[in-house]
Amino acid sequence: MLGYFSFSLIINGVSDTLKFIMSGEPAAVPDIAADAVLVPSDEMPAGAEKVKGYDFNAGIDHHKILESYKYSGFQATNFGLAVEQINKMIEKRKEEIPEDKIENCRDGFPVVRNNCTIFLGYTSNMASCGVRETLRFLAQHNMVDCIVTTAGGVEEDLIKCLAPTYIGDFSLPGKELREKGINRIGNLLVPNNNYVKFEDWLMPKLDKMVDDQEKNGVKWTPSKIIQRLGEEIDNPESIYYWTAKNNIPVFSPALTDGSLGDMLFFHSFKRPGLIVDILEDLRHINRLAMRSVNTGMIILGGGLIKHHICNANLMRNGADFSLFVNTSSEFDGSDSGARPDEAISWGKIRKDASPVKVYGETSLIFPLLVAETFARDYHKLDK
Amino acid sequence: MLGYFSFSLIINGVSDTLKFIMSGEPAAVPDIAADAVLVPSDEMPAGAEKVKGYDFNAGIDHHKILESYKYSGFQATNFGLAVEQINKMIEKRKEEIPEDKIENCRDGFPVVRNNCTIFLGYTSNMASCGVRETLRFLAQHNMVDCIVTTAGGVEEDLIKCLAPTYIGDFSLPGKELREKGINRIGNLLVPNNNYVKFEDWLMPKLDKMVDDQEKNGVKWTPSKIIQRLGEEIDNPESIYYWTAKNNIPVFSPALTDGSLGDMLFFHSFKRPGLIVDILEDLRHINRLAMRSVNTGMIILGGGLIKHHICNANLMRNGADFSLFVNTSSEFDGSDSGARPDEAISWGKIRKDASPVKVYGETSLIFPLLVAETFARDYHKLDK
Amino acid sequence: MLGYFSFSLIINGVSDTLKFIMSGEPAAVPDIAADAVLVPSDEMPAGAEKVKGYDFNAGIDHHKILESYKYSGFQATNFGLAVEQINKMIEKRKEEIPEDKIENCRDGFPVVRNNCTIFLGYTSNMASCGVRETLRFLAQHNMVDCIVTTAGGVEEDLIKCLAPTYIGDFSLPGKELREKGINRIGNLLVPNNNYVKFEDWLMPKLDKMVDDQEKNGVKWTPSKIIQRLGEEIDNPESIYYWTAKNNIPVFSPALTDGSLGDMLFFHSFKRPGLIVDILEDLRHINRLAMRSVNTGMIILGGGLIKHHICNANLMRNGADFSLFVNTSSEFDGSDSGARPDEAISWGKIRKDASPVKVYGETSLIFPLLVAETFARDYHKLDK
Amino acid sequence: MLGYFSFSLIINGVSDTLKFIMSGEPAAVPDIAADAVLVPSDEMPAGAEKVKGYDFNAGIDHHKILESYKYSGFQATNFGLAVEQINKMIEKRKEEIPEDKIENCRDGFPVVRNNCTIFLGYTSNMASCGVRETLRFLAQHNMVDCIVTTAGGVEEDLIKCLAPTYIGDFSLPGKELREKGINRIGNLLVPNNNYVKFEDWLMPKLDKMVDDQEKNGVKWTPSKIIQRLGEEIDNPESIYYWTAKNNIPVFSPALTDGSLGDMLFFHSFKRPGLIVDILEDLRHINRLAMRSVNTGMIILGGGLIKHHICNANLMRNGADFSLFVNTSSEFDGSDSGARPDEAISWGKIRKDASPVKVYGETSLIFPLLVAETFARDYHKLDK
Repeated sequence: MLGYFSFSLIINGVSDTLKFIMSGEPAAVPDIAADAVLVPSDEMPAGAEKVKGYDFNAGIDHHKILESYKYSGFQATNFGLAVEQINKMIEKRKEEIPEDKIENCRDGFPVVRNNCTIFLGYTSNMASCGVRETLRFLAQHNMVDCIVTTAGGVEEDLIKCLAPTYIGDFSLPGKELREKGINRIGNLLVPNNNYVKFEDWLMPKLDKMVDDQEKNGVKWTPSKIIQRLGEEIDNPESIYYWTAKNNIPVFSPALTDGSLGDMLFFHSFKRPGLIVDILEDLRHINRLAMRSVNTGMIILGGGLIKHHICNANLMRNGADFSLFVNTSSEFDGSDSGARPDEAISWGKIRKDASPVKVYGETSLIFPLLVAETFARDYHKLDK
Repeated sequence: MLGYFSFSLIINGVSDTLKFIMSGEPAAVPDIAADAVLVPSDEMPAGAEKVKGYDFNAGIDHHKILESYKYSGFQATNFGLAVEQINKMIEKRKEEIPEDKIENCRDGFPVVRNNCTIFLGYTSNMASCGVRETLRFLAQHNMVDCIVTTAGGVEEDLIKCLAPTYIGDFSLPGKELREKGINRIGNLLVPNNNYVKFEDWLMPKLDKMVDDQEKNGVKWTPSKIIQRLGEEIDNPESIYYWTAKNNIPVFSPALTDGSLGDMLFFHSFKRPGLIVDILEDLRHINRLAMRSVNTGMIILGGGLIKHHICNANLMRNGADFSLFVNTSSEFDGSDSGARPDEAISWGKIRKDASPVKVYGETSLIFPLLVAETFARDYHKLDK
Repeated sequence: MLGYFSFSLIINGVSDTLKFIMSGEPAAVPDIAADAVLVPSDEMPAGAEKVKGYDFNAGIDHHKILESYKYSGFQATNFGLAVEQINKMIEKRKEEIPEDKIENCRDGFPVVRNNCTIFLGYTSNMASCGVRETLRFLAQHNMVDCIVTTAGGVEEDLIKCLAPTYIGDFSLPGKELREKGINRIGNLLVPNNNYVKFEDWLMPKLDKMVDDQEKNGVKWTPSKIIQRLGEEIDNPESIYYWTAKNNIPVFSPALTDGSLGDMLFFHSFKRPGLIVDILEDLRHINRLAMRSVNTGMIILGGGLIKHHICNANLMRNGADFSLFVNTSSEFDGSDSGARPDEAISWGKIRKDASPVKVYGETSLIFPLLVAETFARDYHKLDK
Repeated sequence: MLGYFSFSLIINGVSDTLKFIMSGEPAAVPDIAADAVLVPSDEMPAGAEKVKGYDFNAGIDHHKILESYKYSGFQATNFGLAVEQINKMIEKRKEEIPEDKIENCRDGFPVVRNNCTIFLGYTSNMASCGVRETLRFLAQHNMVDCIVTTAGGVEEDLIKCLAPTYIGDFSLPGKELREKGINRIGNLLVPNNNYVKFEDWLMPKLDKMVDDQEKNGVKWTPSKIIQRLGEEIDNPESIYYWTAKNNIPVFSPALTDGSLGDMLFFHSFKRPGLIVDILEDLRHINRLAMRSVNTGMIILGGGLIKHHICNANLMRNGADFSLFVNTSSEFDGSDSGARPDEAISWGKIRKDASPVKVYGETSLIFPLLVAETFARDYHKLDK
């Protein structure tokens, strides 16, 4: 260090300045300060990337702007890493399943259809907001292999096929809204009539489900119920229309926790006895993870959906590719806010993986992520 | 308003000051500035509380410090309001159930035992950290009427009866921890052997559960499984030892999402066929809410447990008393971060209620809240 | 309400379902539940906007994606509102200054040059990360009228003209970095030699500044120092090269709080006596606000820079247009996290304004905001 | 690992379970799952602390509750570490200044009076809320050696000597408040008349200050102005009454950014020419840090006050003891949210130090921290 410093003194001529500084006021020579502030540095390792933002003088090329993000720092850099992480999942998924793994993937249940099983998780609010159309695009084109969501993540999509959700404001007073029968979700508004319509739509389907249980011995699980509702919704704007069509399993272990639960509850007074088993679904998602050759996780939000996908990937000693997008931080010890590195300690992410977390609100981030990854791939643009 | 201002102009001679200001530099008379900055104010409404903090010259009286919080502002004030909210639940719960409601409360299932049903919700990390002992105190002394938690919220408590959790650090590297088989939860560490011990402990209980299903026709639900495990744990340090003893129902609709799920999954290879039904539990919690005379919600954290308690309270057109403690904010449209006022729009909290949210990390806040409420009540101290 | 409900019962056939529910189990008729859950709703007001996301089947048109954000909810909607807010500033700024205001705007100091004075504020990290190039674009093309930043917001830009900043990682250990003389800013790395180079560059300029004070009676203020450094940097990649060229005042009331301060401190041992007055700068920014016909505020981050711009706008009874982008929430009572509505109570934003806050990290958000506003305007694209 | 595992298989009888699992369904033997989930763990290092919360059955002893926090995890643990960090500062401060350092400490300016110089920083809202009384206690009893705050951190304290601040609500509408002349700070309310009274009080003092500059050659700096105001306020409820009395320097490099600035601005029309120099104050705080034998930093909040104290401590190659309390996280690359480890990379905290950050809102946390540290020391209670 001293060597380097002397060198710098001689070469750069700092020496005189420093000497002057030192000598200026004998009682207060701040060598401690100069040494601390002007400590010389090692060379940066070869290949270290320089920070550089987009130059708008070159015009507005959004793809290039978003490509520049990786070199911008903070969450822009994490966005850039997220794009890479998803693109790796996509490329790995396109590869042939290796010969020696085909048997395991194709025999028995569930069948693993791609060389990288992509698990997509999202919370209810993603179906409430406009991200729903992006999620539907992924389901429509068979771009993911397994979905985990909450009850709301299912019903909010289905209800939108019956009546719209509206833009509101975070500060609309709850009391006034309740008096009008309008429910608030952040800055969105859902008239309660939408849920009444959902009841109308759902009740006959629940009748049929009880019939199927009683007469045909169907053992219902959340994923089977979602599959059935997807088959019934008959509206290509729905995510679950497509997951049903494309046989993408959708897991929601607490499916009773939402309007769907309200309706199942109401219906149970009329036709008691329906059983919704969550253990069979667990076997399904865990076996899907275990039989997969590679896996990727794209998890939008926290709570149950985050833990459930990670836990399934523990069954195979960790996911190969991982992306978390959420607004939580780790300091409260929640799984929601945990950095991906915590999941590595549990074996939910591979030890040698390079998982990515983007700290931010998904409605802003996810459509842009898809624009740079799945959608570019679909529209055959260079990545 | 004008009165005050004129008064101040005349008495205090501000007028001259202002005139001087105005005249000082003719080209730049800032009457716009003076008017904007020195706008006079209305009287504060009678009874407006003055901000005042605790005076440590009076010695260290923690109870008085915490009493002073209500008048301190920011989250200290919300802490003070939270103390009041819980104390209201406690007082209401002690009142006799009104004559005309007794029939509804005592007949049929479930029996409502108190005049205010207190729903307590917490996430998994609360059982992992030292808040567990506070939760156990509440269960032990029958201070709450219903608990909703996640799978981790159950198993982390049980596992602590088998082996301890340790204090670690948020920045311990996941790869090194995985190589040592040590799992990280924020700044806590759980050796994986603890989970191995849990498997040893749990497997025979699962055998018995399958037997009960097959031979005795028991229809298992998450709450029944938790009740059974509480009966088996035989350790008064456990929360669920006491909930079982005190017949406090514990709901966990996604009980498969955790180590318990891992074990149920493993066990299903040996003894397939166990069914875990979530619909019956939904009937239970919803009916508990509906039959209750009054209800209070104490919800520590977000996600499933928050929504599930609120949704059950929708069945009775809203809770009377509500307290949320969590670290989330509303801007991402999540239910986790939603202010209580959003729950009012849905009918999950009464329109005329005064719900409280404390923004902060529960391990810091909840033991102090209990010290000022449930524990003072138990130890018969003035509130 | 009852009327509506009965109506819905008859029309939609819910009636039978509900009757059945009611009658199913006499001891537990959940009319309270049905009434609460199925409460009918008022019509949404005319013009209420429906939530709808972008459809990627239509190809990837980033501008359209970002246009769709306004109707997506959560922070995507706030992004859409932010675009509108900035575009209003741009349009208002292009209008002619009204005849009767020209005298006030053009006479005396400072001269107000546009019909809407745009105040841009940003914290130090915005100059450290790649947002710097976006900020420079705004300064280069004279798109803002006043800048407020911190000491770091000045020096980080200048230092980048001497040596680069690098991409690093949030979890690099501080001790190891210090031993290498590498400073971390989030996931960025700045070799300490950069600051040594800055010292070399700066010292002669400080000599000249002391000379100017002693010989020419120059009274230095932070804004004058920044102007001087901008004149000296001779590098069009610098923000302050352009603010100097374009006479955009840059305020930084705590200019001593950063590397610039370290250097001023060191230099003071050699050449004591330099005075850096902050009161004259305050007169400048306040008068700029007061003399302006309209004002807009674009504030990236919190702390000093946010308060300082808002406080200057109080001098004119509030800004007309306002945009905050930051990651803070209001619950801690900080000005950083305060919603714009708090600023309205102080008169810092007009009572009838529609200010916008986007909750999120600026490096992700701001380049996209500029792409949809200033850059589209510059490149003459439709907005 | 295998060794341990085999051991566990034999001893614990897991072997049969696992064998059964493996054999149950030949096509799906989940050895990958069992291996991943049941990975054995290393022993925890000797001395690893077990997680354990407070047992309320033992009564309510707040001091013991807070002592238990260190072993509770999450931010409770960080609270426990914060108590230790402050107590270390207090103990170190009581030690005699070593013989060989006395000359440096006592000669010249500023005089270092204690063996550990404690820097206390806080944002404006801490003077607005009830934490002010805690801060005043620290100043009154000479428990800290240097304060850094914002303009608001000064004026809010002084204004409270003239008229009270009130408890309000975060959701009071800004427009209505402005019409009543009532300013909102989070959930606090400050009638604007308080600021009018402040103007009345302040103007004559500013006259005197200009006189002192013109007639007595006083060179004003923020710290000198604060000292003067503290001498004038004549109210022992004020923090600055005591800092003036006890000669505790208070730095506020952007003193013009607040109501004080508004008044200095107004006054400048009447009596132009006052100069407020920030460079001399920088010399003062930096030299205080450099001459100190040991230093501790207690920083409540972020922004300028956090950076300024840390930067001064860079002048001595880092603080020995450090505590940050704030609500920010690091992901946005702000200094406000940076973990202490980032400050180590800059040399602002010693490489071998054990700095602490508590993530949380200060009004809730700081009085309790003082109760466990400074106040216990003052009241001669065991720590």
